[in-house]
Amino acid sequence: MPREITAYSNPLVKSVRDLRDKRHRREQRRFLAEGLRILTEARESGRLPTLLFFAAASAAHPLVRTLVDEVEAAGGDAIETTPDILSKLSGKDNPQAVVGVFEEFETTLDALDREAAGIWLVAERLRDPGNLGTILRTGDAVGAGGLILIGDCVDPFSVEAVRASMGALFTVPVVRCAWGDFLVWLRQGPGQLVGLSLDTDHDYRAPHYAAPTFLLTGNEAQGMPAGYAAACDTLVKLPMLGKADSLNAAVATAVMAYEVLAQQRG
Amino acid sequence: MPREITAYSNPLVKSVRDLRDKRHRREQRRFLAEGLRILTEARESGRLPTLLFFAAASAAHPLVRTLVDEVEAAGGDAIETTPDILSKLSGKDNPQAVVGVFEEFETTLDALDREAAGIWLVAERLRDPGNLGTILRTGDAVGAGGLILIGDCVDPFSVEAVRASMGALFTVPVVRCAWGDFLVWLRQGPGQLVGLSLDTDHDYRAPHYAAPTFLLTGNEAQGMPAGYAAACDTLVKLPMLGKADSLNAAVATAVMAYEVLAQQRG
Repeated sequence: MPREITAYSNPLVKSVRDLRDKRHRREQRRFLAEGLRILTEARESGRLPTLLFFAAASAAHPLVRTLVDEVEAAGGDAIETTPDILSKLSGKDNPQAVVGVFEEFETTLDALDREAAGIWLVAERLRDPGNLGTILRTGDAVGAGGLILIGDCVDPFSVEAVRASMGALFTVPVVRCAWGDFLVWLRQGPGQLVGLSLDTDHDYRAPHYAAPTFLLTGNEAQGMPAGYAAACDTLVKLPMLGKADSLNAAVATAVMAYEVLAQQRG
Repeated sequence: MPREITAYSNPLVKSVRDLRDKRHRREQRRFLAEGLRILTEARESGRLPTLLFFAAASAAHPLVRTLVDEVEAAGGDAIETTPDILSKLSGKDNPQAVVGVFEEFETTLDALDREAAGIWLVAERLRDPGNLGTILRTGDAVGAGGLILIGDCVDPFSVEAVRASMGALFTVPVVRCAWGDFLVWLRQGPGQLVGLSLDTDHDYRAPHYAAPTFLLTGNEAQGMPAGYAAACDTLVKLPMLGKADSLNAAVATAVMAYEVLAQQRG
């Protein structure tokens, strides 16, 4: 049976609310995901929250009932609560019907099977959580094997990244590692590293993108360091006809990924 | 000579701060743009702020000096101020060196020359300001003739949209209009209307995108109404191999726009 929390000052509410903050996520090694769509995606991908908050008004919704049942069957805690508390947890005026607390999960380079997918996404020093989530969402769509985050990237478990991923955080493997470790791993097997760069005239439609292709996107403001570019097998550029000198990082990644997908699908 | 404002309670500071709010933008018919990069893009596109706030510490920067000089030469007001006030204006802890207040500008369907560009972007009920700005930024990159906003879209002059556009708001013409008016205008001349839809099996790489092509993207959550889809000359779909059933709207628009561009460039 779900228990009920209606007191704003409940210490459990506070500790969950704290997960909006990176420091607390790191200490607790847990994160927040909100909304029936994202939590259902998680459930279908085999990830259940250990704590599930749901609005009393949504308790009869079939997808909410399924979530509650499965969370409890797995030994988790389902908590009926008020719209006010859901607002507090989600930081939004119009809260979602459900908020879940998940254990952090992550994988390592060595656990990846590079031949399982034709496209892999690699981002270095990605700073914007919306970009990170959007890249995960694109990765899901193109069937990417995973997203490899190099160096000081934004936290993939931040509320904004999870939200922008629309659930793809649960379907696309994420690895965080150092550049050196990535390069060593990369060169132990097949795969070309293709870097998006502004310092080349090589059009992105020119190369042949054999599987597996690793697409490297640099920092939003600075692009990638020269040493990283030098380590790529190919550098490519998207045509830019306008006054601006760059594209949004998630957009550039997506245009590249769809070109690779189109080639690999024939 | 620039004047100086250092008092947080200055009424001018308050009236500019109010421009973060849609109602005040509508009343004042002015909007905020922040940051040296965006304001320089605006200046180079022939748009100067009527009010320019700049940090005393940045006064010697050559691009800031150019902005101050040109704003004053055009009869505008350049105001040296403190980091605290810039924070208040920009709503950010690490404020930009400059904040500008611009008169709203907009164009109409009848003012567009559809044969001046091969790609036109059309979005209906776009709700996210980051998506709107990102679509403008992509529009600049692909040389789009403009962005046509149909129905109840988010305000293109919101701080978030201007920021995400990275200055493209100043280079890509924006029209806001009703669907009926758009259709009447569209059918008065050449051009095919291509809709992104989940309800078709027609791959986006299959059609021939003759110039001018109008790319229609629907609402983030709901896509476009059936009647709008029926009015399109072609519906196309991006392949989606994963668990999710859609892409971010700005990403989908960009992948489409780059396909059209690649075809039109040969």
